[in-house]
Amino acid sequence: MLSSRCQCPTHSHTYSQAPGPSPGETTDYAFEDLQNMGAKSVCLMTDKNLSRLPPVQIVMDSLSKNGISFQVYDDVRVEPTDGSFMDAIEFAKKGAFDAYVAVGGGSTMDTCKAANLYASSPHSEFLDYVNAPIGKGKPVTVPLKPLIAVPTTSGTGSETTGVAIFDYEHLKVKTGIASRAIKPTLGLVDPLHTLHMPCQVVANSGFDVLCHALESYTAIPYSMRAPCPSNPIQRPAYQGSNPISDIWAVHALRIVAKYLKRAVRNPDDLEARSKMHLASAFAGIGFGNAGVHLCHGMSYPISGLVKTYKAKEYNVDHPLVPHGLSVVLTSPAVFTFTAQMFPERHLKTAEILGVNLYPGSVALQGANIRTAKTQDAGPVLADALRKFLFDLNVDDGLAALGYSKDDIPALVKGTLPQLPM
Amino acid sequence: MLSSRCQCPTHSHTYSQAPGPSPGETTDYAFEDLQNMGAKSVCLMTDKNLSRLPPVQIVMDSLSKNGISFQVYDDVRVEPTDGSFMDAIEFAKKGAFDAYVAVGGGSTMDTCKAANLYASSPHSEFLDYVNAPIGKGKPVTVPLKPLIAVPTTSGTGSETTGVAIFDYEHLKVKTGIASRAIKPTLGLVDPLHTLHMPCQVVANSGFDVLCHALESYTAIPYSMRAPCPSNPIQRPAYQGSNPISDIWAVHALRIVAKYLKRAVRNPDDLEARSKMHLASAFAGIGFGNAGVHLCHGMSYPISGLVKTYKAKEYNVDHPLVPHGLSVVLTSPAVFTFTAQMFPERHLKTAEILGVNLYPGSVALQGANIRTAKTQDAGPVLADALRKFLFDLNVDDGLAALGYSKDDIPALVKGTLPQLPM
Repeated sequence: MLSSRCQCPTHSHTYSQAPGPSPGETTDYAFEDLQNMGAKSVCLMTDKNLSRLPPVQIVMDSLSKNGISFQVYDDVRVEPTDGSFMDAIEFAKKGAFDAYVAVGGGSTMDTCKAANLYASSPHSEFLDYVNAPIGKGKPVTVPLKPLIAVPTTSGTGSETTGVAIFDYEHLKVKTGIASRAIKPTLGLVDPLHTLHMPCQVVANSGFDVLCHALESYTAIPYSMRAPCPSNPIQRPAYQGSNPISDIWAVHALRIVAKYLKRAVRNPDDLEARSKMHLASAFAGIGFGNAGVHLCHGMSYPISGLVKTYKAKEYNVDHPLVPHGLSVVLTSPAVFTFTAQMFPERHLKTAEILGVNLYPGSVALQGANIRTAKTQDAGPVLADALRKFLFDLNVDDGLAALGYSKDDIPALVKGTLPQLPM
Repeated sequence: MLSSRCQCPTHSHTYSQAPGPSPGETTDYAFEDLQNMGAKSVCLMTDKNLSRLPPVQIVMDSLSKNGISFQVYDDVRVEPTDGSFMDAIEFAKKGAFDAYVAVGGGSTMDTCKAANLYASSPHSEFLDYVNAPIGKGKPVTVPLKPLIAVPTTSGTGSETTGVAIFDYEHLKVKTGIASRAIKPTLGLVDPLHTLHMPCQVVANSGFDVLCHALESYTAIPYSMRAPCPSNPIQRPAYQGSNPISDIWAVHALRIVAKYLKRAVRNPDDLEARSKMHLASAFAGIGFGNAGVHLCHGMSYPISGLVKTYKAKEYNVDHPLVPHGLSVVLTSPAVFTFTAQMFPERHLKTAEILGVNLYPGSVALQGANIRTAKTQDAGPVLADALRKFLFDLNVDDGLAALGYSKDDIPALVKGTLPQLPM
């Protein structure tokens, strides 16, 4: 049996340049792809931590080797804001690049998507493409430059989605830009880039995968949403659960159930880290079409209104609730609430997470008798989630992040602009 | 229990204009998509049978309503040849279109892909892009025009793939063009377009889905193929089984196992026909990346060397072995042969097709004892396939198509150029 204690040697900082397998061959390919696209002037976006580490170094070497000129922007903010997006956009506008490469987690990929969009649409106001009601939510009709996304965490799935999330500081809420036009041209999902992630980063980003899968699978089906947009260009990026997103959600959830604990507990477990890196992309393909709901909607004020909480193992100079943690903490309550709408789907996910829905039954000509009832679906799934989080030593509820009952009105106020997602 | 007799009222021709639900709203959207793409002069490709039927009529009405000028090419040949491809290419070159719409089965979509490719690359010789060893297999580096594919059969999955198959008449073999560049921009998978399909067309196209799923799931894994191409633009369209294609193969196979017989037997079973239409696209996404192997490789001479066999319910003026039939007839023999390589995968597919791998076992603390052994995997799957085909009254073996032992050398000769696929 695996120990429940983290064996990760890299507690004190976000990434360590540990010896081990070198990511390389796959990453090299991407820059031949860039060359094939005719790229001559590339913008490489990353953050300060990563800029000194192998995933970025390999990209730079590969660009140089292939004779592609590039400039590095390493001022990406972990949990970006409108201000940090703007800074990256200015850099992109000045550079007049013909392709982009984003190496990092969701913050980096999202910042790069925004930079590509606004540099390709230089006369737009920032709020033009930001989701309504905060922005104008205009459809994107300009052509963008190619963007290659190289994820180095296993949670966001941003390499597969047309979404870029940021804190809108003026209102202290998270919002985003959502359009299939900003989806990366190519995602390079190389598990060797994840071997340097500290345990807590693996856990929190894994929680994001868990909730992407659970929320997209339990989202309102596309066929129940109305009215239909009058023109396909006005279709939202998030269209509701559908037969394709369901496949990805269920498959990603099976991987999380089987491999997340292993990936957290042992940084050398290449199989588990590889599977979680794929699960992140798989869940991204699913929720990127279906959407997410309450866990994500409520997570934005939970991280946006942070006071002093600083996540362990994140090397940042500002208070930070990691996105995956802010998402997963409310999940037992959320699914208790949503189960009444689609109880069978909630039971199915509980079963994937290890709940035996047939306790004490006997095989009777192949047909077991299920004892779990649909009215118990919410509590059954909530219990499964609490056990899963307990096994991974997750902080217990919003109080652990420094919130009290007095914060509820502000948390509610910050949630409402996210809905409907 | 479902009757094994076909209840289809449209035995005598390929499509009947039966009353019933009208496909429309979804199809309308596609042409707003065309308008959003800035299309002003569209090439609509179809075949003579379909040109008078609702799927094509709706497209024409929609184009007219949206003020998009278009020309119709309805000379697509069912099971196209290099000659019929060339004819369509000439039409496309003369028209100088800025977008394409293909309404029909695989033959129409494949013809349209080829027309788009060569009209976009007017100085290329026909064999430049045809797969080696018959053609030169050059990578596609020219930009193509947008192509919207509207499948009206549920088998080919061509709306999702970068492949176009044709008979190369000079050598009497099938070959094709394979490049992600010819993949349709948009596939419009509207199940209402399938309600007019005669039973035999549903069955044969369903067999194609069955074999796409089985072959791509049992194809040599991408990680066992060597050498890697030196540049990503030389990556083959078919890359071997992989974690993404596996998901689609298994999911499509589950749908075939559950719904194909219902879809064949009752043309009004909208649920079954809808599921099969999705399964066709799902299997297409899988095999379009992973590839197929022996069933498809051997099918090409089986249909290419046809003497007098004319499939029931296909309204054509030439001898014809429908593609799906030519593929599935060899499947019991093929999987008996290939099972030694990946026995667990063969057993898993047999189980999905209804084989009980745990006969006579008892549930023992949740762990059943599997009695099927890996060395039996081939015969187990072959028996499952024979039963499946028997239930659908499929012609028994190659003799039923008019082949004898004397034809074996020619069939082998026609198979060899297909490998490796």
